[in-house]
Amino acid sequence: MALHLLKSFVPVAPTSHFPIQNLPFGVFSDKANHAKRVGVAIGDLILDLAAVAQAGLFDGTHVEYPAKQGVFNHDALNAFMSLGKPHWTATRNRVQHLLRDDVPTLRDNAALRERVFVAQKDATMHLPAHIGDYTDFYASKEHATNVGIMFRGKENALMPNWTHLPVGYHGRASSVVVSGTPIRRPCGQRLPQKGATAPVFGPSVRLDYELEMAFLVGSGNALGEPIPMEKANDHIFGVVVMNDWSARDIQAWEYVPLGPFLGKNFGTTVSPWVVTLDALEPFLVAGPVQEPTPLPYLRDTSKAAYDIRLQVQIKPAGKQEFATVTDSNLKYMYWSFKQQLVHHAVNGCNMRPGDLCGSGTISGPTESAFGSLLELTWSGAKTVSVAGETRTFIQDGDEVKMTGWCEGDGFRVGFGDATGVVLPAHQTNY
Amino acid sequence: MALHLLKSFVPVAPTSHFPIQNLPFGVFSDKANHAKRVGVAIGDLILDLAAVAQAGLFDGTHVEYPAKQGVFNHDALNAFMSLGKPHWTATRNRVQHLLRDDVPTLRDNAALRERVFVAQKDATMHLPAHIGDYTDFYASKEHATNVGIMFRGKENALMPNWTHLPVGYHGRASSVVVSGTPIRRPCGQRLPQKGATAPVFGPSVRLDYELEMAFLVGSGNALGEPIPMEKANDHIFGVVVMNDWSARDIQAWEYVPLGPFLGKNFGTTVSPWVVTLDALEPFLVAGPVQEPTPLPYLRDTSKAAYDIRLQVQIKPAGKQEFATVTDSNLKYMYWSFKQQLVHHAVNGCNMRPGDLCGSGTISGPTESAFGSLLELTWSGAKTVSVAGETRTFIQDGDEVKMTGWCEGDGFRVGFGDATGVVLPAHQTNY
Repeated sequence: MALHLLKSFVPVAPTSHFPIQNLPFGVFSDKANHAKRVGVAIGDLILDLAAVAQAGLFDGTHVEYPAKQGVFNHDALNAFMSLGKPHWTATRNRVQHLLRDDVPTLRDNAALRERVFVAQKDATMHLPAHIGDYTDFYASKEHATNVGIMFRGKENALMPNWTHLPVGYHGRASSVVVSGTPIRRPCGQRLPQKGATAPVFGPSVRLDYELEMAFLVGSGNALGEPIPMEKANDHIFGVVVMNDWSARDIQAWEYVPLGPFLGKNFGTTVSPWVVTLDALEPFLVAGPVQEPTPLPYLRDTSKAAYDIRLQVQIKPAGKQEFATVTDSNLKYMYWSFKQQLVHHAVNGCNMRPGDLCGSGTISGPTESAFGSLLELTWSGAKTVSVAGETRTFIQDGDEVKMTGWCEGDGFRVGFGDATGVVLPAHQTNY
Repeated sequence: MALHLLKSFVPVAPTSHFPIQNLPFGVFSDKANHAKRVGVAIGDLILDLAAVAQAGLFDGTHVEYPAKQGVFNHDALNAFMSLGKPHWTATRNRVQHLLRDDVPTLRDNAALRERVFVAQKDATMHLPAHIGDYTDFYASKEHATNVGIMFRGKENALMPNWTHLPVGYHGRASSVVVSGTPIRRPCGQRLPQKGATAPVFGPSVRLDYELEMAFLVGSGNALGEPIPMEKANDHIFGVVVMNDWSARDIQAWEYVPLGPFLGKNFGTTVSPWVVTLDALEPFLVAGPVQEPTPLPYLRDTSKAAYDIRLQVQIKPAGKQEFATVTDSNLKYMYWSFKQQLVHHAVNGCNMRPGDLCGSGTISGPTESAFGSLLELTWSGAKTVSVAGETRTFIQDGDEVKMTGWCEGDGFRVGFGDATGVVLPAHQTNY
């Protein structure tokens, strides 16, 4: 059946992020059942996979046994991820079948529907995985160039290695939080003004967002054993939207020579629903031309970029409306997710189910597609308009919302939101 | 009782690392019992704390309840760590009491001794903790200066931030392995010669060790809530020896501007026994004078350095003997463990039980105390002698052994070994 003809008996608005063509996985709980468990988003509802398993609706499928063993009764997707790609696809296929408008199993059984559906408005979403390691890449050429010019000057903007490998660094796993978690403005060392030689201590005065997407590793590799390009997609479970909050003043002072640390690790926000590569496949497009040609281990002739519209909005404290500040697209990303993963493991580094790999800020070629305030305000040299106010950097009380979606023929495969409100820094007597 | 008068009924050689004054915690299993569990090293034996709990020997102490609940029947120290410092100290005190030569409980009960002791030679040691996040600092001024000169030239050796904060970066938790795990030589991108502009791909030709110590966080902090200096030691469980294996050619090409990545994350080796701060307290000394005076949040007037002799030895393939290549001391470290922890959390970054924080390479003021081959051979410009052979960097089949100990009055509080043998790189057809 053509994708756009697929319909669910669950009502789904045309602009909903969660039609039957999507079916992202997440971890939720609700007031009636405090246990965290795995669910799939459909329209405004969640299909409770633990309840689906309990009702025997995975019987006869590839996931019958793990479903009976309770793989969906977990507080994270890791156990499900560990089953491997054939199980992920089989589960999604079964769920898609059960939700079709021409399949009576759930459609015509009110008692069963009562057991397996929870309204999203009644649910609490949790971090989708236990994140063993979080890596952040720097895979947008436009972003790397913009930041490079501001931090190091035009002549050193793009380092010589940048076009040869996906530059990345390890981030902090403990402070990755799910959408809706408030973020405390960090304190730290910063230079009081340009040219100063001694730092001062206090709340960051240049707090920023970074618009990113991130993939979650579903299937790992043993220490010492690389992942070849042709297997890369079998290791990727799915994709989320991510806000890599950044304190630019702390970062600028600390990052030489070992990279970002306290300027980043006070909080990283991810959207709760993990959109699978199966759902994203119809939106594959060719990525930017890579020149010079990458070394053989990084070469990939397949379409490996995704056409995903990405937006950032800000709502100041006391305002009712969000104002759009960034409108970008994942297709601008230079190094694909596959290339990021293959490079990460080429030295034998072992990836594990639940590992999170961020793309780095996704900026596009035009100013409206710049994925951070640092770039939009050119390091604070100008302001952006935000719902009747102006901003150079984020103020206390600002709520930042990121979202993304693929535009199908009459439907959207979307990511929901990654939001966070900024709390004032703690008073310190340092 | 004066520390040196304390004796165990278990025979302990004067050069043993594990006298009754030490009592480090680790995780082990043995042929008779495959279950991983918590033990304490004493002489050539391991006291099985799960068995001690089972025998009711923690009854009446602060840890009676968690011991009965099975806190020592875990495959990692995390659950025990999570109890907090009063429990760590109470457990150590009880174990020290039970092992004294004037306490008959175990000394005079052969059947009980049979149940609670395992010979170290019959045991397999495991990674002591589930490491949620691994951070590596750069806290030795001698090392940072040496490497800075080689990577960036004399005028840029020590960056302006270095004397103001403990520079650190996030490392890879998944590839931290316990002593004895072989390390596969990594492949990666490197420049074929100085001045080249395009990289080649292949096995690293500049594989190095880094002599480090690392502390394990025992007690965490909530996201957004810093750890003040006066509480720092309550959060540190103990200390291990660590080899931060480094591929210098991969590192040099990739590390700008976001820091080390594939040059480091192919493997990091830690010693299995975690020596507690209680055991190390007699060996506190004043650290290097810090000039300029650190910002108030980093100030600490207490003695916070430890006098720990550190050695690195190499045994080439086919040789019988290890040759000492580095002879250093932790007391040279500029930024203390306390300062590292306080800085790490000052922006609200949340630490969790089991987090591993490396010191960075511990080099001393003389060449014999240089903690890496990079420094000893001055980036390969000269060789070092190793058991009748010469080395600029590590060769396949080389076994690298690191150890450390505090010299007491007739006893040693030691760390055992962190060893690893280097396996040849995988053949690739890239």
